[in-house]
Formats: sequence, structure tokens, C-alpha cells
Amino acid sequence: MKTVSEIAELVDGVVEGDASATITGLAGLREARPGDLSLLMSHKYAAALADTKAAAVLVRADWQGQSSCALIRVANPDAAMTQIALALAPDYPATEPGVHPTAVVADSVVLGEGVCVGPLCVLEEGVEVGKGAVLVASCFLGAGARVGEDSVLHAHVSVREGCRLGARVLVHDGAVIGGDGFGFEHQDDGRWAKIPQVGIVEIGDDVEIGANTTVDRARFGRTVIANGVKIDNLVQIGHNVHVGENTAMAAQVAIAGSTMLGRGVQMGGRSGAIGHVTIGDNAIVGGNSAVAKDVEPGAMMVGFMARPHMKWKRIRAAEERLPELLHRVKKLEQLIEELKQNSGD
Amino acid sequence: MKTVSEIAELVDGVVEGDASATITGLAGLREARPGDLSLLMSHKYAAALADTKAAAVLVRADWQGQSSCALIRVANPDAAMTQIALALAPDYPATEPGVHPTAVVADSVVLGEGVCVGPLCVLEEGVEVGKGAVLVASCFLGAGARVGEDSVLHAHVSVREGCRLGARVLVHDGAVIGGDGFGFEHQDDGRWAKIPQVGIVEIGDDVEIGANTTVDRARFGRTVIANGVKIDNLVQIGHNVHVGENTAMAAQVAIAGSTMLGRGVQMGGRSGAIGHVTIGDNAIVGGNSAVAKDVEPGAMMVGFMARPHMKWKRIRAAEERLPELLHRVKKLEQLIEELKQNSGD
Amino acid sequence: MKTVSEIAELVDGVVEGDASATITGLAGLREARPGDLSLLMSHKYAAALADTKAAAVLVRADWQGQSSCALIRVANPDAAMTQIALALAPDYPATEPGVHPTAVVADSVVLGEGVCVGPLCVLEEGVEVGKGAVLVASCFLGAGARVGEDSVLHAHVSVREGCRLGARVLVHDGAVIGGDGFGFEHQDDGRWAKIPQVGIVEIGDDVEIGANTTVDRARFGRTVIANGVKIDNLVQIGHNVHVGENTAMAAQVAIAGSTMLGRGVQMGGRSGAIGHVTIGDNAIVGGNSAVAKDVEPGAMMVGFMARPHMKWKRIRAAEERLPELLHRVKKLEQLIEELKQNSGD
Repeated sequence: MKTVSEIAELVDGVVEGDASATITGLAGLREARPGDLSLLMSHKYAAALADTKAAAVLVRADWQGQSSCALIRVANPDAAMTQIALALAPDYPATEPGVHPTAVVADSVVLGEGVCVGPLCVLEEGVEVGKGAVLVASCFLGAGARVGEDSVLHAHVSVREGCRLGARVLVHDGAVIGGDGFGFEHQDDGRWAKIPQVGIVEIGDDVEIGANTTVDRARFGRTVIANGVKIDNLVQIGHNVHVGENTAMAAQVAIAGSTMLGRGVQMGGRSGAIGHVTIGDNAIVGGNSAVAKDVEPGAMMVGFMARPHMKWKRIRAAEERLPELLHRVKKLEQLIEELKQNSGD
Repeated sequence: MKTVSEIAELVDGVVEGDASATITGLAGLREARPGDLSLLMSHKYAAALADTKAAAVLVRADWQGQSSCALIRVANPDAAMTQIALALAPDYPATEPGVHPTAVVADSVVLGEGVCVGPLCVLEEGVEVGKGAVLVASCFLGAGARVGEDSVLHAHVSVREGCRLGARVLVHDGAVIGGDGFGFEHQDDGRWAKIPQVGIVEIGDDVEIGANTTVDRARFGRTVIANGVKIDNLVQIGHNVHVGENTAMAAQVAIAGSTMLGRGVQMGGRSGAIGHVTIGDNAIVGGNSAVAKDVEPGAMMVGFMARPHMKWKRIRAAEERLPELLHRVKKLEQLIEELKQNSGD
Repeated sequence: MKTVSEIAELVDGVVEGDASATITGLAGLREARPGDLSLLMSHKYAAALADTKAAAVLVRADWQGQSSCALIRVANPDAAMTQIALALAPDYPATEPGVHPTAVVADSVVLGEGVCVGPLCVLEEGVEVGKGAVLVASCFLGAGARVGEDSVLHAHVSVREGCRLGARVLVHDGAVIGGDGFGFEHQDDGRWAKIPQVGIVEIGDDVEIGANTTVDRARFGRTVIANGVKIDNLVQIGHNVHVGENTAMAAQVAIAGSTMLGRGVQMGGRSGAIGHVTIGDNAIVGGNSAVAKDVEPGAMMVGFMARPHMKWKRIRAAEERLPELLHRVKKLEQLIEELKQNSGD
């Protein structure tokens, strides 16, 4: 619990208004309750600032406008809020190095210095965990799986046999790395014969994988998630997909088998791509959009079958006018009919 | 195993047809097998009733129509079926209060009276569980997490550090409460810097959360799921989202960060909303629809970029006629060309 | 590590080029690195073959074209690659029959011959596991659940109370079989009353269920997944759904409650169906498509509200021309206006 002035001090801010009020929590402008500290992210939210119940709000040093509460003027409200949030965050006990007695660790497992294997983890034969890595609890590492230095795997993560994670990889609860790819051959009698999925998943350094996300092992060779890739929750990555460096995918994205994403690609929430296509470096695919053919580097694609953004905007705008258009065409037909009759007279 | 007449007695029903037949299971009209009891939910299914293989069917007291099997006339077939299903359901052993010897419970954990901590659960320091709550098996409760009275967490649920669940909350298997929000800042060299996610998730009373659903912790402050909210499977709730009381979301819904849903909102299957928008009280968003701007209270939105329902219906109907429209416009152009030539003669 | 000629021998292939090169991995043509073996799946990828960094490529016996690396000519490159992948795959330790000492197995559980109950599994009262089945690790089998012969459940799978899996069923990590269906009744005060979900899930033989997929228990009776069905990751199957034999569903499909899918249906990635509809035998529903009414057997449906494929293609093509169409109609209106003025002169 800190006062407005104590918080301003943390971030080199200048207070306007009641500096002695106590801050009891942090919240966005619209949902703030009395005692909360909030921030003004952009001018778009100026109206919310006038209405907020927050006790104090972080604003840019040069901000001009109405407010009903104390202001803390700072160079960068966003960065200041992060700093304050970290300072006020509860001090959770640090994970301690060592293997919890309830963990089940095979004889041939190799653990680096300072590794924490939390309670009820299962590490099968041949697993290697790099120094400083943390397996929080109830993780499963299949035979021969490798986890790099300083990586953190939260509860209920599965890393299947032979899959490899680099250094500083953060995997959230329930993610599955290396389940079988979806590969079957249709038989004459209608049944599906399974195509063996004997490849692995290879994840680079500094990757983040969201909760309950699934990354399938390759049919053969490797499904690749390169360095610096950030993947949100409930995302599906098919077998033999390659995701280039620093590509980011929001929640519920799905990438079908053997598709290649370049570097720095951004996939919006619930966007997707069919199999065997290539999405070029730095392309942006809008939320809910489905990529059905190759995408040029740097392109911005939007839509059900994703199209270049400007084209899609024109089409969407035209679609809005379709009911009107039908009426207009009908009227035209009548007019022409009249004209024809007139000229036939 | 009960006879048709014994079942009719359970629900104060009147039998027509063979009252002595034995009922061996329950099923919908179309999939019923001999020996099954079924029900007629609405007139829409009257044809299925004529064809059903069920041994007996629950119908409204005043129902008139053909059937090939015994009927049980009741005031409310739907409610009667629920009553019968409960009566015939197998008697699973009750969970017993106490901490299973295989659970891993930190010293500072506080358990209310009658709490059941099932096998292989992990409760970190500072966790509090209210009286009568049940952790079925293999649940993970991070440091400082709180679960309210009479809540039930099924297997493999994660409640991350600091997150709070109210009373009578039901969480299905594999759900993840409090994974990190998806927040990164783009660096000049193309890499993503992680924005710390130090807030929590706060879930009210009487909430249900579906299997493998993910609710992200706030960047700062709280992601809020208010009292009475019902969330289906594989749903994604982003950081700092606020979901109002009694709002319901069907499977695979996704709500992006900082969006606010009012009370009594209904989100259809796989619908979604982009970040930073507000959906008003009692609004209805159709299945597969994506909300891209604020929605008025009580509005009914449908479509890829969700539009008011009536407008969307007109647009969809017009789209159906697009191929025809193109032909008509082409014909018009020819006609006009003819007219012009005629008048130019 | 094998040479090109050793690998050719494995699959009765004929080598062209450097037969002594060492093969160190397997990869697709586009992502292959030096030392990799790759394959040419179809003529579509002939350009990638010319550019590949692979050391050798499997091609059809009669293939003609440019390549920069060794070729291995075989009757069926696809089948040959599977054969080679299996031969080169690391030899993971076989699961051993028996109950791991950390598993929690209730007294009344019945295990067939040769069953493997891996570490940290929980088997509640009345569970039955058929001979030769494998529960890899940390699986949860609720009271009375049954798993058939030679089935394999990977880590963190939940099979809830009373649910039944047939023989040779393969379930990937984190899948949840038998969570409650999403059934609530709206109360006058806005709250939702839960409709008890007391049915089960019944899964046939030779079924595959993907990672983190959820199949809900029936409200009453059974949710049915018939023999030979293949389901990918993150799929949602609602309560009382019936899925016919050999039907296949790609990732993120969602089927709402009480819908019936026939035999041999194919659902593309992220396609779905609303509740209470019937999809006929061998129908194909395209990726991202949503079925909103009954689908005839053998039909091919595509689109937001799925339409027959040919109709949808015409509509999509017309939509592409909408902006142009609006211009054309505007021009027509001007022309007609001119004509009218002329004829009025």
C-alpha cells in the first residue's frame, strides 16, 4: 500500500491533485474502483479519464484535459505502469533448485546446475534439462526430450519424446509440444490408415508458448519454431510447419501442415493458413482471416480467404451496399424498359 | 433398469402403449436404440418420433400425432427427462473430505472445513481453499491462489499464482486460470520484449469454466469474470477483460485484451471480439461472428465483422444473388448500348 | 547415420548422383539443410527441387527434370519416406507392463493383462482397462471409466466418470473426454440454472483424438464417436453429438450439441456445425466453413454459412468484382439519365 506521492516518486512523476491518497490497486480507466491507480494510454480514452473512479491516473507530461482525480505526469505512462506493477506485485516465493521428492526422474536424465524439477513432474529416459531451467509442477518430458537453459515450463505441460526446446523458452500451462501430426491415408473401405509421425518439434531460444497451445511433431524431420517467436493460447501448429524468427501469433491461430511462415510475421487472433503455403517475411494477417495461397513479404492480408487489405476494405464496403445495389439495378431495368417502349412507340 | 410404467410414475406421467417394456437407456429420438427412452422436444421433431426406435417417448400432455412406440404424457418433457436422467444415473462414489496422501501441500496453505484435496494435487505457499471445496485430482494451485466455498476443480486444472475463484465455481478438466497475457513490445531489431503480466484473474461466485479454456491474468490489476458467468470449452479470455454478471459464452469464443462485456451478454460458438471494445448488457453475438467495434446494449450482432442482425440478413440474402446481379448488369449495359446506337441513328 | 546408397537399398531405390553422401536428417524440399534427405511429393514442387539444399531427394521412378542433388528413384516416394523415417527414428524405450508405484489406483479397478499404468496416473473406483493398454503418465480416469484393449492415452488425458473408450484408441496429451455439456436454463432474474449432464461419452474402436481436444458428456444418454473416427487437436464436440464411422475432423473443428455426422464425413480445419443438424454420409465441409442446416450425403459445402461448393465459388468470384460492379451501376445510371434527357428533348 503506497500513497500517490510515493508512487510518483517510483517513476519520477509529478503529482497534480491529492498526493496523500492511498493506492490499493491497479486497473484500466473504465473498470477502476476507488483507490485504484490507472493510466491514460492514448487520447482515444480521454472521455474515460473524465469519468473514471480511479484515485489517480498516469498521463503524459504534456497532457491537457479534464480529470476528476489526481494526475501523475510522466514521460511514458505505459512504461511507468509496468514499473509500478512490478514494484507492487506480491513477492511470490522463488522456485528452489533441486528435484522435488515426488518427481519421477529416470536414471539417464541429465540435469544442469540449478535446475528446479517441481513436484509430480515425469522425466523419461534420456531427458536433458539445461542449467537454471524450471519445471513448475506436473510437467511431462518424454524420452529424449531436451529443455534449454533458463527455460520455464508451467504446470501440466507435455513435451513429447525427442522434442527440443531452446534457452529461455517460456511455456504456459497445459501446452502440448510434439503430439502426433494429423496424417492419414484414405483406404478403399473408407477407413483411415495412420501415417507414422516420427519427426520432432524443434523450438529455438526466447520463444513463448501460450496455455493449452498444441504444436505437432513432424511426420518426418522437424516442425520448427525459430528464435524469438511468441505464440498465444489455444494455437494449433500442424506437422512440418516452419515458423520464422520473431513471428507472433495471437490466440486460436491455426497453421496447417507444411506451411512456412517467414520472419517477423504477425498473425491476428484466430487467423489461419491452409497447408503447404508460404507467408513472406513481415507479412501481417488480420484477425479471423484465412490464408489460402502464398502471401508476399510485407503484405497485409485480411478476410475469410485473406486478400490484400485495401482490396478487402473496398469489397467489404461494397458488400455493405449490396442490398441497395440490388434495388438500384432493378430500377435501372425498369427505366430501360420504359425507354425501349418509348423509342419503340 | 425400470419399466415404462415405473418411469412414468417418477414424473407423474400417463402411459399410452406398452407400459411393461424395460427401459435400458436414454437417447435423442434420432439415435435411440431399442430399449431407450427418448423425448419429443418440439413439434419440429415430430417426424423423428414417427421413425424412432425408442421403446418409449416423453411427450406433452396434449400432444397429438403418430408414434410407433409407447408414450409417456407429462407437463414438461424436458424437465421430466432431466429428473429421470438423475434418477437413473449411476451412483458414483462421493468425494471424501481430507487431503490425499499423494497431494503436495505447502505449510502455509489454509483449508476450510470438509475440503477434499484429491490425489496428486499441488498447492503452493499461501493457497486458501474454502470449506466444502473439492479438488478432484492433479490440480495445480499456484502461490497465493484462492478457491471459494463449495467450488469444484476437475483434473489437471491450473490456477496460477495470486488468482481468486469465488464460491460454487465449477472448473472442468484442463482449464488454465491466470496464464500470462499476450503482451510484447516490438523492438527496432524485430524482436519482441515481454511486457510483464503481474495482475491476476478474479472469478466471482457461481461461475462455470469449460474444459481446456484459458483465462489470462491481467497485465496489471485484474481480469474479471463476474458472478454467474458460464463459459464453455476451449474459450480464450485475454488479459484485463471484464465479463459482466450472467454472461454466457459457447465453445471456442475468444475475447481479446481489455474488452468489456456487460451483464447477460450471450456469445455464440466461436464468436469473438477484438480488444478494447465494449459489448453492452444483454447483447447477443451470433456464432462465428466477430465484434470489431462497440456494441449497444441489447443489440443482436451477426457476421464476420459483426453487424446488426437484420442488416446482416439483408446483406447475406443479397450476396446469394451476386452472380445473378452481375449478369443483370451486363445485360443492362448491352441494352443501353443498343439504345444509344438507336438514338444516335 | 546412413549413406544415400544404404537408404536407397532400404526402399529398393535407384540412385542417381552421389551415392556415398551421408544422410543426417529428413526434411521437406524447401526447408532441407545440407545432409537432409527429402522427397518430391508432386510436380507442383518441381521448382523447389531445383533449389533444394537437400543431399538427396526421393522421386518417382519415371520423373524427368532438373535437380542439384542426388536422386533416389522409387515407385512411391511418399511411402518410401515413411519407411525410411521409421527405420531412422530413435529407438525410444518401450513402455513396460505394470502399475507404476506412484500411480493412485482404487481397489476395485480391473486391469487386463500387460496393461501399463504410468507414473502419477489416477484411476478411480470401478475403472476397467483392457489388456495391453498404455496410460503414459498423469492420466485421470474417473469412476467407472473404461478403456479398451491396446489403447494408448498420453500424458494429462482426462476420461471422466462413466465414459467408455473402445480398443486401439489413441488419445493425445491433454484431451478431455466427458466434461459437462454446456446446458443452462435462463432464469427470470437473468441467472442461468444448470441442466444436469448425466450422460456419458462412448468412443468406438480405432479412434484417434488430438491434443487438448474436448468431447462433452451427454446431457442424458451418450455422446457417440463411432469406430475409425479421426479427430485432430483443439476440437470441440458438444453434448449428445453423434459422429459416424470413419469421419475425420481437422484441428479446431467445433460441433454443437445434438448434431449428427454421418459416416465418412470430412470436416476441414476450423469448420463447424450448429446444434441439432444432420450432416450426411461422406459429405465434405471446407475449412473455416460453418454448417447452419442439414447437409445432404456426399455434398461439398464451403463458406461462412456453408453453401454447396460450386455456388460458393460463383459467389466468391462475384464478390471479388463488387467494387467494380458498383462503378458499373453508377455509370449505367448516368447513361440512362442522359438518354432520358435526350429523348425528352
